[in-house]
Amino acid sequence: METARLWMDMTWPEIQQAIRANRVLLFVVGTIEQHGPHLPTGVDAYLPMAIAERVAQRVDGVVAPCTNYGYKSLLRAGGGPHFVGSVGLRGQTVVALVSDILSQFIHQGWRRILVLDWHLENVPFVLEGLDEALRAAGEIPGLKVVKIDNPNGLGVAADPGLQEDLFGADFPGWAVEHAAIWETSGMLAAFPDKVREDRIVDGRPPQPFDYDVLPTPRGAAPESGVFWKATRASRAKGERLLNAVTDGIVAAVQKEFGI
Amino acid sequence: METARLWMDMTWPEIQQAIRANRVLLFVVGTIEQHGPHLPTGVDAYLPMAIAERVAQRVDGVVAPCTNYGYKSLLRAGGGPHFVGSVGLRGQTVVALVSDILSQFIHQGWRRILVLDWHLENVPFVLEGLDEALRAAGEIPGLKVVKIDNPNGLGVAADPGLQEDLFGADFPGWAVEHAAIWETSGMLAAFPDKVREDRIVDGRPPQPFDYDVLPTPRGAAPESGVFWKATRASRAKGERLLNAVTDGIVAAVQKEFGI
Amino acid sequence: METARLWMDMTWPEIQQAIRANRVLLFVVGTIEQHGPHLPTGVDAYLPMAIAERVAQRVDGVVAPCTNYGYKSLLRAGGGPHFVGSVGLRGQTVVALVSDILSQFIHQGWRRILVLDWHLENVPFVLEGLDEALRAAGEIPGLKVVKIDNPNGLGVAADPGLQEDLFGADFPGWAVEHAAIWETSGMLAAFPDKVREDRIVDGRPPQPFDYDVLPTPRGAAPESGVFWKATRASRAKGERLLNAVTDGIVAAVQKEFGI
Amino acid sequence: METARLWMDMTWPEIQQAIRANRVLLFVVGTIEQHGPHLPTGVDAYLPMAIAERVAQRVDGVVAPCTNYGYKSLLRAGGGPHFVGSVGLRGQTVVALVSDILSQFIHQGWRRILVLDWHLENVPFVLEGLDEALRAAGEIPGLKVVKIDNPNGLGVAADPGLQEDLFGADFPGWAVEHAAIWETSGMLAAFPDKVREDRIVDGRPPQPFDYDVLPTPRGAAPESGVFWKATRASRAKGERLLNAVTDGIVAAVQKEFGI
Amino acid sequence: METARLWMDMTWPEIQQAIRANRVLLFVVGTIEQHGPHLPTGVDAYLPMAIAERVAQRVDGVVAPCTNYGYKSLLRAGGGPHFVGSVGLRGQTVVALVSDILSQFIHQGWRRILVLDWHLENVPFVLEGLDEALRAAGEIPGLKVVKIDNPNGLGVAADPGLQEDLFGADFPGWAVEHAAIWETSGMLAAFPDKVREDRIVDGRPPQPFDYDVLPTPRGAAPESGVFWKATRASRAKGERLLNAVTDGIVAAVQKEFGI
Amino acid sequence: METARLWMDMTWPEIQQAIRANRVLLFVVGTIEQHGPHLPTGVDAYLPMAIAERVAQRVDGVVAPCTNYGYKSLLRAGGGPHFVGSVGLRGQTVVALVSDILSQFIHQGWRRILVLDWHLENVPFVLEGLDEALRAAGEIPGLKVVKIDNPNGLGVAADPGLQEDLFGADFPGWAVEHAAIWETSGMLAAFPDKVREDRIVDGRPPQPFDYDVLPTPRGAAPESGVFWKATRASRAKGERLLNAVTDGIVAAVQKEFGI
Repeated sequence: METARLWMDMTWPEIQQAIRANRVLLFVVGTIEQHGPHLPTGVDAYLPMAIAERVAQRVDGVVAPCTNYGYKSLLRAGGGPHFVGSVGLRGQTVVALVSDILSQFIHQGWRRILVLDWHLENVPFVLEGLDEALRAAGEIPGLKVVKIDNPNGLGVAADPGLQEDLFGADFPGWAVEHAAIWETSGMLAAFPDKVREDRIVDGRPPQPFDYDVLPTPRGAAPESGVFWKATRASRAKGERLLNAVTDGIVAAVQKEFGI
Repeated sequence: METARLWMDMTWPEIQQAIRANRVLLFVVGTIEQHGPHLPTGVDAYLPMAIAERVAQRVDGVVAPCTNYGYKSLLRAGGGPHFVGSVGLRGQTVVALVSDILSQFIHQGWRRILVLDWHLENVPFVLEGLDEALRAAGEIPGLKVVKIDNPNGLGVAADPGLQEDLFGADFPGWAVEHAAIWETSGMLAAFPDKVREDRIVDGRPPQPFDYDVLPTPRGAAPESGVFWKATRASRAKGERLLNAVTDGIVAAVQKEFGI
Repeated sequence: METARLWMDMTWPEIQQAIRANRVLLFVVGTIEQHGPHLPTGVDAYLPMAIAERVAQRVDGVVAPCTNYGYKSLLRAGGGPHFVGSVGLRGQTVVALVSDILSQFIHQGWRRILVLDWHLENVPFVLEGLDEALRAAGEIPGLKVVKIDNPNGLGVAADPGLQEDLFGADFPGWAVEHAAIWETSGMLAAFPDKVREDRIVDGRPPQPFDYDVLPTPRGAAPESGVFWKATRASRAKGERLLNAVTDGIVAAVQKEFGI
Repeated sequence: METARLWMDMTWPEIQQAIRANRVLLFVVGTIEQHGPHLPTGVDAYLPMAIAERVAQRVDGVVAPCTNYGYKSLLRAGGGPHFVGSVGLRGQTVVALVSDILSQFIHQGWRRILVLDWHLENVPFVLEGLDEALRAAGEIPGLKVVKIDNPNGLGVAADPGLQEDLFGADFPGWAVEHAAIWETSGMLAAFPDKVREDRIVDGRPPQPFDYDVLPTPRGAAPESGVFWKATRASRAKGERLLNAVTDGIVAAVQKEFGI
Repeated sequence: METARLWMDMTWPEIQQAIRANRVLLFVVGTIEQHGPHLPTGVDAYLPMAIAERVAQRVDGVVAPCTNYGYKSLLRAGGGPHFVGSVGLRGQTVVALVSDILSQFIHQGWRRILVLDWHLENVPFVLEGLDEALRAAGEIPGLKVVKIDNPNGLGVAADPGLQEDLFGADFPGWAVEHAAIWETSGMLAAFPDKVREDRIVDGRPPQPFDYDVLPTPRGAAPESGVFWKATRASRAKGERLLNAVTDGIVAAVQKEFGI
Repeated sequence: METARLWMDMTWPEIQQAIRANRVLLFVVGTIEQHGPHLPTGVDAYLPMAIAERVAQRVDGVVAPCTNYGYKSLLRAGGGPHFVGSVGLRGQTVVALVSDILSQFIHQGWRRILVLDWHLENVPFVLEGLDEALRAAGEIPGLKVVKIDNPNGLGVAADPGLQEDLFGADFPGWAVEHAAIWETSGMLAAFPDKVREDRIVDGRPPQPFDYDVLPTPRGAAPESGVFWKATRASRAKGERLLNAVTDGIVAAVQKEFGI
């Protein structure tokens, strides 16, 4: 039964068996953030969960429940505090949330843990939460946590032509891939019903890019919430991207956990 | 489009419209907890979300993303710390999580907020988080938060014969309704594919019931994780229960928000 | 000397002897809360301390200093934030207070600890503080903490006719026993000088009872702060109640600590 | 009725009247700490409460409930962590406790607040708690908090011959007045039944005195817990000391609150 | 007098004048981290302070005291936890430190504040601290905080040929510029006496680069602590780099503060 | 090379050697506080660092980076919150800062640690931070931390005539030695370029001295920020004071660390 990959759909005896079998546990820290007029606010939970499920199928893993909520949106990475629809946590809340959850995973006997988030702003706070849980746990034989920092880097490693083929010569970098080619394509491939295809628009990155101004000025983000050429997205691109990132993460899992 | 009731599936302009229309926002604090050999660990997220969606359909509400994680399981309410499969947060993490999320709801302009949780242990910490957010917000004209403490009480008010008809004369009380008649019936009605019908067993409440012993003794909870007569559950009972609770909450929403 | 039961009245060598003798330590988390026009605001410290002293006499226990302050008053349990005279702590302060104190009890060698509070709102936060202290302490051989959650339940177990005899057929439940029959009777029995007998009035429970509305509406609590029929109280009822609860707790102590 | 000076013995309408009359509120942060073989561990709650009640009688004040617990004992000020019988809180717990309580005093309308503690180690953490509450409260017209830092200094100001008359030429200073002349005399005067007069011994101050060594070395404190010449104590000295300190604080109250 | 640019060397009346003149305040969050066998552990405080002083001279700014300590070292950004000599704070400590300091800057009247750090790991926690202080401050007319996120990006904008000229064709990116060309050159230019020129060695970046493994494996970082070609460093390169970054930050100051 | 005493100027292999040689580590918690019109705001960092370096030369110690920032200024100890130029941290931030840093010192293998601060307000919060770090570390063989509480006491012990010779018969005590004889003389001796000799003025202690009034009243501190006779300062007095305190601390180091 396929649903037995999802912790939330498993019974406690099934979880117990999975721990005893030393299966890989995948944990996604999601986020609720605006993604333009055409993508739902749940993209940063939907996409990494879709990837986690694909990886889990390949490595016989279990996918823990998604937190849904994560660190707050920043101007340059997702539009910042002036968009309604984004809901974020303070840094210390993310740290506590991740630390509590990891502590219980460890306490229950999980030893191969893969942590994934999609929302760039989450990265340092999730890492801090992991570090806090691991320090509190002390030395645990066999415990290894792999925190994917840059799924796109792993995707490019698995499919080297990816960037040139899909993003074109004017690609301004992954940092502005918000609600644009990647995310729109990925959602078209994995959750086509959740995309409002008739409302896809192109946008431009927020400015400036080498410093922050606080309080975040109104008007610095593009009005639509789209940072780049969403109109170049396609379902085929989405499939290729999801496959590449899945392949890259699977390779990391195999290397680090020896499976 | 029905999915437009779920925040995670809505775009930010759709959220903006909902706020401007002063629609009711329903927020569920879920939990991951063992529910016997026949129910998935996600019951305390799945059931309140199902109820929230039914209420939302009736009052044209919006359902915010579920936290999935909540306060840790206690022996007498859900089996306690010795079950793998349950994953809980410390009290202060629940408080911070709820407070951060509510603060942003308020900041973005939501004024009619209904908060629901199913997991009994969540109640005081969710309330503390709400209180903290409301104190920090100061006086906000028109803001009202309704926190459902006892959905079963509202269900009985809406369908007075409910308890006698469904639970029988030997009903030991709602407090031991864990993975038993109510939750098994409700899951059979709302998520039949997630129930392992062949593994339904009856159980007994943990003892003692008027005090806690710490550290929680092993063996105090029933081995199966079921607290009462799960074999008495049925899909029809589940539908009646879901309807009653939905009716009860809708009545509270109508009374408190004047709609 | 009878006062040698009270930690605050004992010298440090006396405490040292008590620890070495493995005596039971009773710890009360009190609260300051309005109790109508006829009872002092200290009821939730005075009554549980009186019970703790009675239990201590029976089991040769030591009674630790009362915190006096506890979690804040909630509308349905004690009248809520609009009464002057009630002074409450935030949840995390109660947790820290209890955790710090328990940690020192454990560190100094106490191994049989009974924790009691009277104020319903305290329960989950006191339990969280105990859990935090016990997790930090790690495995301590012989350590057992008994947290009385429901002294009335133990009282009824010890004196089965109690409820019918004292509260009558229209008894709406323990939850509304605030400043009413029980507390007024108990104070008349244990601290008659602290009761303003000429000001005893009856009251009614706050409404609604299955959910909370926040911010707490003014006027939802009874103006007097009395939730039920305080005029039915008597000193004789108080003695019977104190005896029943004392008997019930003594039975739990004997069962759990084997004395 | 004299007991109406004690908040815990007052009803909520009596508290309400006191606030409306702008009476002075006295708040004592107590502590549980070893005080030698002859004094109870509650001295740092009993003595400042006795002083607070005497001051309250003179200025028509109200005495708030004592916290009983305060900051942990330090070697040079009270013997440190190796004495059983002392129970102390972490600094941040004291800060939170004081801040929560003060916030509610302010919120309920008290405008003339006197804060007193006896345990030297409490001073900076109580002050921090007051500061935190006052910053959170913002500008409150008419609010004034007087925090007595050095009651002995006020006592000497009120009775200039006090130090020479009672402590003699070899007096090594107030800092070593722990369980010695002052505290023993004060307890003999105010709570004679709580003193074990047959066990009074002299002691010596802990060493060194200009720095701390951590972890606190065992044996650095006097074995008895007495820091100086407790045998020189007398009830008469106690009365003079209590009177002097009471006079000094009353003078400060009159000066600062204009009454 | 040139030293009057440094807050620590200014008197309080001089600070008062600077605030009244609305001068720019520059605040550096430093860090103590290993920088190979040839550079001192203070590089991440020395270099940004040198840059801040150069900027201050150009814009008549004041340089606040450096915190010296910052967020802990991570494997891929600076070598991680296995190097002695690095001393880092937990994330929440950095947040609290920055938030407290900023709150006081704002409270004292500074309205043009530039925040700079050099240690990549600091970035999100410093930003969180700023955000926390600004939220607590509420709306402050005229207040603007510029947080330099990427000084190298500003440097390249000011001196477009910089990267090609100084780092060569095999430049693996700024992320591995640890104790290598930039930092060694910069220290040779600004603090030549602090460089052990005879111990300069080349190194290699830690691996892997797209994910973290926790607990941090020993041996993943280069043994020397140098991540790239430190031997290509020179004083001339250092001057050009310092000038470029200074020019870039000055341009940002002029644009954002209108001076 | 003399600078190799300063951690910030040492490379990580040099730190490693120092730890292996079990050298004494000196750690200064500084503060930024007004010191009158003639002394810079950095006095409470400059002076203890100068003393630490002198002690380090005598005992072959290493001087850790100064925090620069410390606990906030209080009226009676340094002028309080109404002076611009003073920048202080909340108590819990000081505790966290010190605890994090000490934890890493201990983790890296330092076993002889001397902690020094100059700013009186820091004392209890620094001690709390040390205590927290030591509790978390558990039992560490050979670890000893010496926290200098009263450097002046050690100075007087080393040079008994110091007080009479330098401060005169009207000396009101060390507590008012703020920006006065000691600090002005010390700065003249150690950092003459940082003293504005033409602006030296005398002042008077803040009042009252036996209690605090909150909120801190404006005008309670002397307008200049000088608490006593700064005009009596001289470079020669400064040298004698620095020598005496250095001698006193060296004696404590030798006694406690056996070197």
